[in-house]
Amino acid sequence: MTTTPLDTSTPAGVAVRAVLDEHAAAHAARDVGRLLRLYDDDAVSYTLAPPLQQGPDSPYGTPDGIARWFGTFDGPVVIDYRDPVVAADGDVAFVHTLTLMTARAVGQPESFSLWYRSTFGLRRHTNGWRIVHRHESTPFHMDGSFRAAVELQP
Amino acid sequence: MTTTPLDTSTPAGVAVRAVLDEHAAAHAARDVGRLLRLYDDDAVSYTLAPPLQQGPDSPYGTPDGIARWFGTFDGPVVIDYRDPVVAADGDVAFVHTLTLMTARAVGQPESFSLWYRSTFGLRRHTNGWRIVHRHESTPFHMDGSFRAAVELQP
Repeated sequence: MTTTPLDTSTPAGVAVRAVLDEHAAAHAARDVGRLLRLYDDDAVSYTLAPPLQQGPDSPYGTPDGIARWFGTFDGPVVIDYRDPVVAADGDVAFVHTLTLMTARAVGQPESFSLWYRSTFGLRRHTNGWRIVHRHESTPFHMDGSFRAAVELQP
Repeated sequence: MTTTPLDTSTPAGVAVRAVLDEHAAAHAARDVGRLLRLYDDDAVSYTLAPPLQQGPDSPYGTPDGIARWFGTFDGPVVIDYRDPVVAADGDVAFVHTLTLMTARAVGQPESFSLWYRSTFGLRRHTNGWRIVHRHESTPFHMDGSFRAAVELQP
């Protein structure tokens, strides 16, 4: 048993970072199959977009839904996982990191950037580490406006 | 080494659920000390309120800040962790769950309820399981309004 507290220099830490790198690469390539190969079949995702939890009946819960989302961009969806912090033991790991997404929506002359928070829960199977849980969010302003805080920077 | 995939009937699953129960009980009692005893000193929290990450300079990053937040309510802050899903191995665990908070703001005649998503990362120390990471959020509407989706239900 190897314990890797907040440590990305151990085998588990390196493996979890490789999953994040591949997750980002699949977004850059806008490749749904490549993205979903990183996920367990029973993965539960809490995404930036409603509903509370993505599932087979929700906009981003299926390969087709993710493909439609990728189709709203021209060029790569660039995701920068900034300073991931990994905890791992045995076959279970989680990682959290502030995240910068930069992309250009179809028909727009300029790209946009958005900072948000990412947490992944992973399990190691015989074929390697897979994402079983993903949680992405921005906070929202507590001034009565209920505006999502999409303008924040670390 | 005990692996407890998505299972709350094992010792680690029971222990992690007990941490959630105590987290809820500390909110119901609005007891800052009781709440913070569940956290590792180096815990990183992504909360419903800005900034992206709570720290010693942010509104909810200190005991005083949490006490002020508790002070904005009359009576208990009731938190219901609905159907937590736990993954644990050795000394590392994570859990995710949809969450219903119900509370009454000072000066308001009626309580409000809010559904959000919660993910916790935990580590087991010699004195038991502690929270090292917390991520709470609502999604936001992708209709150009950037409104936080605070009206959703599972």
